[in-house]
Amino acid sequence: MNAEIVAIGTELLLGQNVDTNSAWLAQQMALLGVDVYGFQQVGDNEKRMEAAIKGACERSQVVITTGGLGPTVDDLTRKVAAKVGQKTLVYYENLAKAMEAKFFRTGKLFPQSNLNQAFIPQGATLVPNPIGTAPGFILKIDKTYLITLPGVPSEMKAMFEQTVKPFLKGLEPVTSIIKSRVYRTTGISESRLNEKIADIFESSQNPTIGVLAHPEGVDIRLTAKASNEEEANKLIDALGKILLTRLPNNIYGLDKDELESIVGQMLMTRHMTLATAESCTGGLISRRITQVSGSSTYFLRGYVVYSNEAKSDMLKVDPKMIKNKGAVSAEVAEALAVNARNQSASSVAISTTGIAGPTGGTEEKPVGLVYIGLSDDQTTHTFKFQFTGDREVVQLKASQAALEILRRHCLGLSLTD
Amino acid sequence: MNAEIVAIGTELLLGQNVDTNSAWLAQQMALLGVDVYGFQQVGDNEKRMEAAIKGACERSQVVITTGGLGPTVDDLTRKVAAKVGQKTLVYYENLAKAMEAKFFRTGKLFPQSNLNQAFIPQGATLVPNPIGTAPGFILKIDKTYLITLPGVPSEMKAMFEQTVKPFLKGLEPVTSIIKSRVYRTTGISESRLNEKIADIFESSQNPTIGVLAHPEGVDIRLTAKASNEEEANKLIDALGKILLTRLPNNIYGLDKDELESIVGQMLMTRHMTLATAESCTGGLISRRITQVSGSSTYFLRGYVVYSNEAKSDMLKVDPKMIKNKGAVSAEVAEALAVNARNQSASSVAISTTGIAGPTGGTEEKPVGLVYIGLSDDQTTHTFKFQFTGDREVVQLKASQAALEILRRHCLGLSLTD
Repeated sequence: MNAEIVAIGTELLLGQNVDTNSAWLAQQMALLGVDVYGFQQVGDNEKRMEAAIKGACERSQVVITTGGLGPTVDDLTRKVAAKVGQKTLVYYENLAKAMEAKFFRTGKLFPQSNLNQAFIPQGATLVPNPIGTAPGFILKIDKTYLITLPGVPSEMKAMFEQTVKPFLKGLEPVTSIIKSRVYRTTGISESRLNEKIADIFESSQNPTIGVLAHPEGVDIRLTAKASNEEEANKLIDALGKILLTRLPNNIYGLDKDELESIVGQMLMTRHMTLATAESCTGGLISRRITQVSGSSTYFLRGYVVYSNEAKSDMLKVDPKMIKNKGAVSAEVAEALAVNARNQSASSVAISTTGIAGPTGGTEEKPVGLVYIGLSDDQTTHTFKFQFTGDREVVQLKASQAALEILRRHCLGLSLTD
Repeated sequence: MNAEIVAIGTELLLGQNVDTNSAWLAQQMALLGVDVYGFQQVGDNEKRMEAAIKGACERSQVVITTGGLGPTVDDLTRKVAAKVGQKTLVYYENLAKAMEAKFFRTGKLFPQSNLNQAFIPQGATLVPNPIGTAPGFILKIDKTYLITLPGVPSEMKAMFEQTVKPFLKGLEPVTSIIKSRVYRTTGISESRLNEKIADIFESSQNPTIGVLAHPEGVDIRLTAKASNEEEANKLIDALGKILLTRLPNNIYGLDKDELESIVGQMLMTRHMTLATAESCTGGLISRRITQVSGSSTYFLRGYVVYSNEAKSDMLKVDPKMIKNKGAVSAEVAEALAVNARNQSASSVAISTTGIAGPTGGTEEKPVGLVYIGLSDDQTTHTFKFQFTGDREVVQLKASQAALEILRRHCLGLSLTD
């Protein structure tokens, strides 16, 4: 079974909005074993919409459109679908009443133009909209199912999940599906990672392996093709195990896992508490930690010691040490971590001091130089990093390295490899 | 002049990557006065690529492709372009040598597969790649210019700017262009904003007005059509002036301006310094402030007083007050701001305390309740907010409200309207 997606909206063609709906739909299709042949984006233009939808219906058994279902004269999907399917538009009294009732409950006045949304091509099956007013519909045109959904992502997704997905599942037995899982790594460069897995990278056919680097680390995506999701998971599990033996220290999570959640979970289960002392990261670490719901269980406090005076005044770093060693030094990172832990009585404290740039670098201490300190009741470690990238990237990399040091500390993993 | 864009890459059709190149190119085209008729995304599949590119060439005078120019067997754009244009592929010795030289400078071994990239359709004009190895080209096919660019956004953009833009400008005199400017507001709901500008919203034809709400505020986009950029700017300026009189307190910036940069600039020019005391925002305000280069000039320090003990210990909030009034109270917000300012000797301090959720709310103090305090050498204000949204949205809205209070304080604007 093949599918195409047609996204409708002039705002897309002006580049004001990026069409993220098609990618989301494509992911869903892959899981249903439906091959996506292509996407198109067209404006709210009858002729162009007709050409795009007609062409797609001639090529593919399933065509999904997004957008153009609103109440205004610009919203032409109903009209064009009826034309391509050679049907008339029928006014559904019940639908109109349901819309009016929905509006009534919100206490808002019902705009009469909304009644345009009650016109549906004859013979089409309705796709209810649990969020907004515009319903979608499924219209059979020869051997093709034309499925129209709104452009608002939350509505489109809800309607796909609730109605379209079961409909597509019922169409024909799934013969093969495509499933992906991402293994997230940090603390290793893309080229070093490639060296460590080059042989499996080249030999593995199913799952295939893709690697994507970003400032927080390198993601490894395994994509398996199998007769069902369980089979695909088995294939991915098997290769995933090999990845874990090759990169025992670097894989911190799967798919959309974020390091701050992983670390938070570890601190919670170990009944540990945390304090932060940040200079160059300016609060980014505490922000990431407190973004996680429930972080008040383990996060006690943060010191954002941006100025030298703040370092001495808030965390008792000896001004002489700052003068002699520099604010960006292993000694200051250590003092920050030790005193943050002592003052907060936390189990562990993490500190950063560095040069985020773009200014402030010297030959001896260039932009991107960051020291990170970690202190617990046993010991204190400091780490030196030389990050590349602009200010935002350096700050992000420094926060990620600090969280990764915390993670490895919790697990007793090597802190340097 | 009409244009279409064809994005090539199987990863797009699996939904693993979102095609942002097309939207970027469409924005550039609008500024050049070129009408974009549509986009397509197709996989690395010869037949589908040929159909998509051929169809686009038949309809439009300019067709831009992105992707499929790499060195592997999957990269088919050169081959398909030659086929659609009925040209043979020619091996450019000089191009191959230049690629090899480029590689040599990086110290890496030159992969022989890269030589595939030296095959270009006969008669095509090269589009040099100042960043990577893959060059693009412009091929005239009947009345159409087929322009091929790589899929890597940084390379695609650089090549467009350097070669394609001047080429398109030279093709025909521009008769009309489309230009947008965004006026960014905060501290006002979308419906209140709509009330204030409903009349101009309806009456204005050129520029047109679009409104987009997001957690940080509401953006108003003015889009003008004119014979050149200067004319478009004049049209936008005129309507922009009216917006400024209607929303004198709410517009904080234009286009991609962020409140933290605007506030930073104000603090700098006023020789003011800042300290923060954050509970529910967990460092987000200091993180946003320190994301701006040069923030060390005005940002002194931040207290992330996440636990009650931290509030008392770091900023001397009376534990009895916390017990009697609650950590989330106007009194605690005030004490945090006053003491943060006193301890840091900053000109101004801002504080937050609230319930970010999803847990921790009560009937009396529900999730989303946030108090913000502002203290300077004259006075202290506290503000009560009831935000809606999930944890991340509440934190974001609270940080935005705090920065907006700072901005209005600097400008002497009303803090409540």
